[in-house]
Order: sequence, then C-alpha cells, then structure tokens
Amino acid sequence: MTDLWPDVRPDAARRLMAAAVAAFGERGYHATTTRDIATAAGMSPAALYVHFPSKAAVLSAISRSGHEKALAMVTAAAAGPGDAAARMRVLVTEFVAWHARRHRVARIVQYELTALPEPDYEAVVALRRQTDAVVRSLIEDGVSSGVFRVSDIRSAARAVLSLGIDVARWYTAESKPDPETLGADYAGLVLAMLGAAGA
Amino acid sequence: MTDLWPDVRPDAARRLMAAAVAAFGERGYHATTTRDIATAAGMSPAALYVHFPSKAAVLSAISRSGHEKALAMVTAAAAGPGDAAARMRVLVTEFVAWHARRHRVARIVQYELTALPEPDYEAVVALRRQTDAVVRSLIEDGVSSGVFRVSDIRSAARAVLSLGIDVARWYTAESKPDPETLGADYAGLVLAMLGAAGA
Repeated sequence: MTDLWPDVRPDAARRLMAAAVAAFGERGYHATTTRDIATAAGMSPAALYVHFPSKAAVLSAISRSGHEKALAMVTAAAAGPGDAAARMRVLVTEFVAWHARRHRVARIVQYELTALPEPDYEAVVALRRQTDAVVRSLIEDGVSSGVFRVSDIRSAARAVLSLGIDVARWYTAESKPDPETLGADYAGLVLAMLGAAGA
Repeated sequence: MTDLWPDVRPDAARRLMAAAVAAFGERGYHATTTRDIATAAGMSPAALYVHFPSKAAVLSAISRSGHEKALAMVTAAAAGPGDAAARMRVLVTEFVAWHARRHRVARIVQYELTALPEPDYEAVVALRRQTDAVVRSLIEDGVSSGVFRVSDIRSAARAVLSLGIDVARWYTAESKPDPETLGADYAGLVLAMLGAAGA
C-alpha cells in the first residue's frame, strides 16, 4: 500500500500512513492510538513523532493526499479530448475504479472527515468544493452543447460523485467485477442518467 | 430522535438507543463506552445493562431496526400500484428521503456494519441481500415489460441503492434541498439511469 504515496519521503512516513489506514479502517480513528500506528509500522511512538506531530497529522496527510488525487483525476478527465459525454465516461470510469481499488484509503478519506483538525478540515472542504465544481461544470458544458439533458445540475453532479464514493463502502478485495469493469459499468449508467444521446 | 423506534419498549431502551446513535456518530463505535451511552441517556451503566447486555447489543438493535425499516420500505414500494417506473419512483423517493432525514442513524447503520457481533452481522447481511433482491427484481420486471433499458441489472441495482445510502454521508440538518425534494430529484435521475421511456 505504500506505493499509494510515491511523493511522500522518507519511506518511514509512508509506512506510517499505510499502517494508519489499516488501523483506522479496523477500529476507527478515535479508537486508534499513535502507539497502534507506530507498532503496526514496526516503529516506536517516538519514531512516529519524528515524521508526524500527532495522530491527527497522519489523518490529515492521508486525507489531503486522497482529496488532491481525486481532484487531479477529475480535472484531467474533464479537460480531456472529445465531447462532454466522452470526458464524463473517462471521469466516472477512473473515479469509480479508484474508489474500488483503493477502498481502504477511500473509506478513511470519506468517513473520517469530521475528525480532521480545523485548518486541514477547511483545506479538504475546499478541495471537495473544487471537485464538485469540475463535475458541475462538465455537466453544464454537456447541457449547453446539447449532449446531456439534465433538469437539476447540482443534484446530478452530487449523484455522479456519490456513485463513485459509495463504492468504497462496499467494495472489498473479493468483490466483483474488477475495478475497471465496475468503472465502465457505472460510466454507462451515469451517461444514461445525464440523458446522453445514445447512452 | 426516540420517535424513530416507536415499537421499542420501555422508553429507557429507546433513550439508550438514541444516546448511542449520538455517541457513535461523534466518536465512532469503538471509542464509545457503555458509560458514555448511559450517561448521555441520563442513566447509570448498571441501568443500561437492564436493557442491553453490551454496547454491541445496542448497536445491533439500532442496525437491525434500520435494516428492517429499509427492507419494509422498498418491499412496499416495489409491490405498489403502477408500472415498474412508477414503483421505482416511489422506492427511490422514500429511500433517499429516509437517508436524508435520518442521516445520523443511517450512518451508524451503514458504516458500523463490521462492528456487529457475528449472529447479528449475519442477520443484517441477510436483510441487505433481501433489499438488493427486491430492487433487482423490480429492475428485471421493468426490463422484461419494456419500461427500462439496462445492460447490467446487478450494477444498476447497486447504483440505485448506493445513491440513497450515500446521502447519509453528506446530508446534515442544514443541507438543501429538503429530504422529499432530494428524493424526487434522485428518483428522476434513477429513472433516466434505467432508461425509462420519457424519463
């Protein structure tokens, strides 16, 4: 799982983030101690503090990284080639596949939001607003170019993101279909939902 | 919130369930003690044990009741009047509105599933399977009667339920629109997603 954060250095910080994802997922954030995280990463609590000032800081690093990744993914898809339907297909396929493949991280990112300390919470909320805005603007683009037919763009954008996010709740390593197939299935459903011609 | 469980007697048991929903929602199940629950309900820990043998038993009561309610709701909607599209419209409107209005309970019901003790976990999984089956069978009915056009019924059923369940994640008392309007919006999106003629 440490390959999730290729940009995090050193390795020890990455190992701590991976250990935290496992511990938070198993017991919840509040019932996890810094000692639990350090031990699972094969370190002492003191060694954890070299990299993160607190348990909350580990959560913030996981959450910010996940939200930045999601925003980068939808931004790239929305700016891709083709009409709004083609771009939405890529966006949903990738967003859903990511939530399936990275369901353990995605659960932490989505469900432990209120545990974030104030400045990090605000930063994450800002990233979420930007992600919403990208999806809304792609739907608006599709409506104005006659590719989509949607009555309430805000609800439609929420529904598109919800479909992806909720995958992390139920998807496990044993789930079928594989993340990419699920993403493609959901992309088809979303295009129909948005009234895409020919969907 | 105690009006959620009109069939639970006596009042004290209902108050304990409501206190547990608040505590689990705030700190997570694992970090909540039976003392926290009892205190929030204005009782002693000993008084809690008169009604529930353990913290897990309180969670089970909340979770089973929520899942039974969801199953009853979708079963009634699927068996209602009109064609598959009319019945799906009622099903989604009510399922979404319930997850918005009861978001605090719904979050516990949905996110603390793995904390359930084994026999209750099995019972809840069985209720979930039945709920899935009702939705799948309504979609099959719509496809075979030519009302819906869906390529993968299993994915479509999952998506319908996901849209409702995920509302509990983000909906708060301050959210807009109101639960019934959101339900109606989502019902329109779902009918389009299922390729309902005229949606």
